[in-house]
Amino acid sequence: MIRASLNCIAPLLGLLLTCSASLVLAKAHPNLVHTVSSTQSMAEQYERYPLFNREVIALRSSLDAQLDAPLQVPLPKDAGGGYTHEQHKKNYAAIYHAGLLYQMTGDMRYAAFARDMLLEYAALYPGLGTHPLPKAGSPGRLFWQSLNEAVWLVHSIQGYDLIHSALSQEQRETIESGVLRPMAEYLSAGQPAVFNKVHNHGTWATAAVGMTGYVLNDNELVQQALYGLDKSGSGGFLKQLEVLFSPDGYYNEGPYYQRYALMPFVLFAKAIDNNNPERNIFAVRDGILLKAIYATVQLSYHGKFFPINDAIKDKGIDTTELLYGVAIAYGITGDSSLLSVAREQGAIALTGDGIALARDIAAGKTTAFDYRSMQFRDGAMGDKGALSVLRSGRAPGHMAVVMKNTSQGMGHGHFDKLSWLLYDNGNDIIPDYGAARFLNIEPKGGGHYLAENESWAKQSIAHSTLVVDEQSHFDGDRQRAEQHWPGGLQFATGDTIKIAAATMVGAYDDVSFSRAIAMVADESLEFPLIIDVVKAQSASKHQYDLPLHYKGQLINHNLRLQHSGNTLSVLGDDNGYQHLWVNARGRASSDADVVRISWINQNRFYSLSALASQPQELILTTLGANDPDFNLRQENAIIQRLSDQRNTTFVSLIEAHGEYNGRLEFTRKPYSQIAELDLHSAADTDLVYIKTRSGKEILLGLAFGSQSNTPHAMTYLDQEYRWHGFYQLFE
Amino acid sequence: MIRASLNCIAPLLGLLLTCSASLVLAKAHPNLVHTVSSTQSMAEQYERYPLFNREVIALRSSLDAQLDAPLQVPLPKDAGGGYTHEQHKKNYAAIYHAGLLYQMTGDMRYAAFARDMLLEYAALYPGLGTHPLPKAGSPGRLFWQSLNEAVWLVHSIQGYDLIHSALSQEQRETIESGVLRPMAEYLSAGQPAVFNKVHNHGTWATAAVGMTGYVLNDNELVQQALYGLDKSGSGGFLKQLEVLFSPDGYYNEGPYYQRYALMPFVLFAKAIDNNNPERNIFAVRDGILLKAIYATVQLSYHGKFFPINDAIKDKGIDTTELLYGVAIAYGITGDSSLLSVAREQGAIALTGDGIALARDIAAGKTTAFDYRSMQFRDGAMGDKGALSVLRSGRAPGHMAVVMKNTSQGMGHGHFDKLSWLLYDNGNDIIPDYGAARFLNIEPKGGGHYLAENESWAKQSIAHSTLVVDEQSHFDGDRQRAEQHWPGGLQFATGDTIKIAAATMVGAYDDVSFSRAIAMVADESLEFPLIIDVVKAQSASKHQYDLPLHYKGQLINHNLRLQHSGNTLSVLGDDNGYQHLWVNARGRASSDADVVRISWINQNRFYSLSALASQPQELILTTLGANDPDFNLRQENAIIQRLSDQRNTTFVSLIEAHGEYNGRLEFTRKPYSQIAELDLHSAADTDLVYIKTRSGKEILLGLAFGSQSNTPHAMTYLDQEYRWHGFYQLFE
Repeated sequence: MIRASLNCIAPLLGLLLTCSASLVLAKAHPNLVHTVSSTQSMAEQYERYPLFNREVIALRSSLDAQLDAPLQVPLPKDAGGGYTHEQHKKNYAAIYHAGLLYQMTGDMRYAAFARDMLLEYAALYPGLGTHPLPKAGSPGRLFWQSLNEAVWLVHSIQGYDLIHSALSQEQRETIESGVLRPMAEYLSAGQPAVFNKVHNHGTWATAAVGMTGYVLNDNELVQQALYGLDKSGSGGFLKQLEVLFSPDGYYNEGPYYQRYALMPFVLFAKAIDNNNPERNIFAVRDGILLKAIYATVQLSYHGKFFPINDAIKDKGIDTTELLYGVAIAYGITGDSSLLSVAREQGAIALTGDGIALARDIAAGKTTAFDYRSMQFRDGAMGDKGALSVLRSGRAPGHMAVVMKNTSQGMGHGHFDKLSWLLYDNGNDIIPDYGAARFLNIEPKGGGHYLAENESWAKQSIAHSTLVVDEQSHFDGDRQRAEQHWPGGLQFATGDTIKIAAATMVGAYDDVSFSRAIAMVADESLEFPLIIDVVKAQSASKHQYDLPLHYKGQLINHNLRLQHSGNTLSVLGDDNGYQHLWVNARGRASSDADVVRISWINQNRFYSLSALASQPQELILTTLGANDPDFNLRQENAIIQRLSDQRNTTFVSLIEAHGEYNGRLEFTRKPYSQIAELDLHSAADTDLVYIKTRSGKEILLGLAFGSQSNTPHAMTYLDQEYRWHGFYQLFE
Repeated sequence: MIRASLNCIAPLLGLLLTCSASLVLAKAHPNLVHTVSSTQSMAEQYERYPLFNREVIALRSSLDAQLDAPLQVPLPKDAGGGYTHEQHKKNYAAIYHAGLLYQMTGDMRYAAFARDMLLEYAALYPGLGTHPLPKAGSPGRLFWQSLNEAVWLVHSIQGYDLIHSALSQEQRETIESGVLRPMAEYLSAGQPAVFNKVHNHGTWATAAVGMTGYVLNDNELVQQALYGLDKSGSGGFLKQLEVLFSPDGYYNEGPYYQRYALMPFVLFAKAIDNNNPERNIFAVRDGILLKAIYATVQLSYHGKFFPINDAIKDKGIDTTELLYGVAIAYGITGDSSLLSVAREQGAIALTGDGIALARDIAAGKTTAFDYRSMQFRDGAMGDKGALSVLRSGRAPGHMAVVMKNTSQGMGHGHFDKLSWLLYDNGNDIIPDYGAARFLNIEPKGGGHYLAENESWAKQSIAHSTLVVDEQSHFDGDRQRAEQHWPGGLQFATGDTIKIAAATMVGAYDDVSFSRAIAMVADESLEFPLIIDVVKAQSASKHQYDLPLHYKGQLINHNLRLQHSGNTLSVLGDDNGYQHLWVNARGRASSDADVVRISWINQNRFYSLSALASQPQELILTTLGANDPDFNLRQENAIIQRLSDQRNTTFVSLIEAHGEYNGRLEFTRKPYSQIAELDLHSAADTDLVYIKTRSGKEILLGLAFGSQSNTPHAMTYLDQEYRWHGFYQLFE
């Protein structure tokens, strides 16, 4: 180490000192996510563990192919998706990966490759002005937006750190002064608004600047990264930690963006932990970063993230960001249930923590991850709604309900208050459409969000929630939507019943609505029963639509239907309705009948049994109208409609039942196991009565908005039912 | 052995004697599929091999639950699907399984259970007349049709054989004289027309009667089973062996029914082999039974049977019938590649051969099964068309083409001459719809074939083949269809090109058509390229539709399309057209343009590049119109249409290209890799010209109906191309 200084000698001395840039001592490299000891353990052990080694082999094969090709470090020209943009993205990955492989294999070719690439950037960067196609408000120099520039630096500073020992003093000075330091300064002092912003883009900037500070031994950069440009603490990484996750580790935009937002947090935190262990960064805010990592895992079913809001549905826990997250969490906690998450991920981060994961999996230390029924509060203070998750167990194939009682979630939020999703048997049963986007597929609108994301995916009717007068919640206005979130949250889990509920005021000027969803395990039924109660209240008359989006093939129903015949029409004009084809409309055979529709999904049957406070019209739809570019998937929905109503209540039961076994050629219980369904409502209470085919009676009493100690009583069929608080199950 | 006789002592004496019922010696039981030594090896080893033991455990758990329940042997009343029908089906399975478990475990409870059940039948059967709901022509007594009765006996005689040693002489006499012998007589002398019929139903009858003959030591029954009632050889099992499979082991109705037809053949043959090894039954007709078993495996992709004709698409090689087939074939051949088939099956037949499979898999003897490009001739003499299979390899994910050049295939045949299917990457790409039927799902028309099987699934437009004037082949008339089959068959496989072709005369009064499908492996392309040429010839003008049914999401196209807007209409009135919604109609941007449509299936892209001898109209459709019971799946097709044409040619290229990787967030080559496509036709020859984006030129010369030594020459772009015979690839 010729030119190196010690940022903070506390760990060496075992004392808590104020760190200072004036202490200039030798410092070891690497010292960010990777350290001397972690790279040493990777180098020694990577070949030992197949799960880890497989990734190394794949990485080498990919990088080896680039070693002899001419370097491409083009003058910035294109915006996102274009050639120069994509090339600079490829380059930062290559710099980082070459550094990593150099440390693991000791092969100088990798170090030389990263070095030469960095020298090219050192020659290019000083001459760059603002990018020729600048993003308004946050332009970059290499990239059209500074977000990409921050991501470049997060990777490249790590690559530099990893090859530091292979560089001459002159090379280091060239690279640091040519690109690393000026880029860090551009991302901090050069764009104060973004840098100080308490937002995911700000986190990438603070991580880039802070990590650069550690490697360049520049404590000023580190302090700015941690506390904001003015080091007041009103911005910077620590403030972001306070605000960007809820107290339960939930990220406002939903799981899909949560895993993306997680990346700079966990990387920079790991670097902080290695450089300033006395900060105990992973303990900050009651361990918020670990909570966020665990929450990201919890927000999934069979490995895929709950696709609420703008989400790509194939994204799941095997995403690169969560590989790092799980490895880093394991490094902190040693929690053996994370080993089973790593096994589900099927891949492993190439870090020292990753080696520990691979080693401990091989040693058979894996225990089951505890997928749980839990409520994730939303908002920095945890006071802006919640995402509620009910699970029947944690084993593969368990049944799970997700109820979206969250706040809007910024620009990627959808307008679907109190909507819900159902998973069972490993499958999507009541799905969320996710985003209308084919990520990275250039012929589909450049891989960007498509027009149908606005016209369909974000609209209320695209979700299984209440839609009034064919208008989306908040009229689809994000500014309005950000001002309101569900209240009256209820969440309770027990052995026989798990229940979540909320009330939404403000989604419509004139209508408020509440919903309760319960998962009831009854020994007379093979699978848990879902009871869904939606109550709307208004002083004036409205049309109420309650769509149930379902996956599978319709098996049978008890409706009198009018079919479409030789022509099919759209359901409506706007707000997503223009995308729905009406296959059939109808009603139950008699007004007294419960609506019954069954479908099959893979090898299991599902039935909806439904009634409402007035006889409802049923509309069966298929998605795909007014879709000139074939951007929508052909999915089906059942819409319950009540017209000209003030207050109204919908009660829906969803059950899984029976089995279709193709190989052994048998079918069990293809019919609903529910014999009767009834609703009895009083001023503030509702009683749902259910009788199964085996004669078992189940009653659920509900009192939306009730305090836990408030007593309630209802009489139904000459019997009195009494309970305290929001709900009571009577069996 | 109190009363037992030796059917044929040849094996004991090492001599070939004429078998005779007059030789009465002690005979060991069991002696059908199971023998004394095979049951002994199962009893000794079943717990050793997890693959085998898992099945035993499942069977015990299922049967143990029945042991203490009261026996249900009801008076016959219901037809197929009804209670008494289903109960008698359950009972024969229980009798057989109880016998098997008795032999494996020695637990007398199983023997007593089977014994008591058989005694109930012995008491019931003598009093039965013809079933109250008799099937015309082939009524049963226990069941509405005698087919089920034969299946009952095939199972029950085996169950009886397995518990024979646990019965008293009196019990044996009661059971044999009460039910086994009278039923065998009913199935033979009692219904001569069915018994002598050379048809799958006849095979069940001969198997039942012959196996009963072996167990009851009644050589008369055996001889009738082998040679027909009059023992002339004009009927009976040996005749069935001659006729019901083609010389290549192909069964006329297609793979789905092939695996069903296989069952009585392999069971009875195994019994014959154990009792009369001198017959060398598995060598008969050049080993036709082994060919049939191997063919059934070959007629699959990723474990699922090619779903041509009436087929349930989830049926595959793990079907019970093929578990027996593979085990029995392994017993004969010891072919280690069958071990990998057994592993794909994931289950194993509980027989002595099954134990050998499990043992040799555990011993690591497995080798890869050689899934091959091959042509399966159709018809007893192999002269009625063929099913042609082209494969790019044998590993999982290889590309496979199935071209249906077969004859009609009796009542379960569909009207789709020269249609084709494409598989790739483990998926259905160009699918066959299979049957419109939800097997065993009672709410879907009792689990039977649905009306849409006739109105859609059997129609020509439901398949990827030529449809003239919106009429199905042979006007959908089975009698007419049975009189015609494709001629001019061509089949050739090489390293760079594999090709199949045929010509159909007679599907339309006025139009004949030919098709060639080639799979070309070119190093300039990542995956093989499919070249599909369809030529129609007629003296008068017609409308020609060439549908391509595809699975996946449409990505982009180069068409000028008229979209459906706010209403959707059906494509036609009848012959399946009434089930198709027209999403859009259009043409290529200019008449000179090649039509280009791309879609994505799972993680890979596919493109159609098409041109025709005249500019074609394109119609994009979705299935589902006029489907009041929601019996159809919403699948998509691209229809190329030429109107008012006499002779015409369609050239279609189908390519797989690129990759969508959600986890690692990249996409490769989402666009077609074909730059140019041209067709040059002369009197009897066609030249297809293809240029890839990388500049590679590929030409395919075709001369339908040409002899292999006939010379051909064509000049294209000033260059002459010369070849001999049907085809030549020029690269």
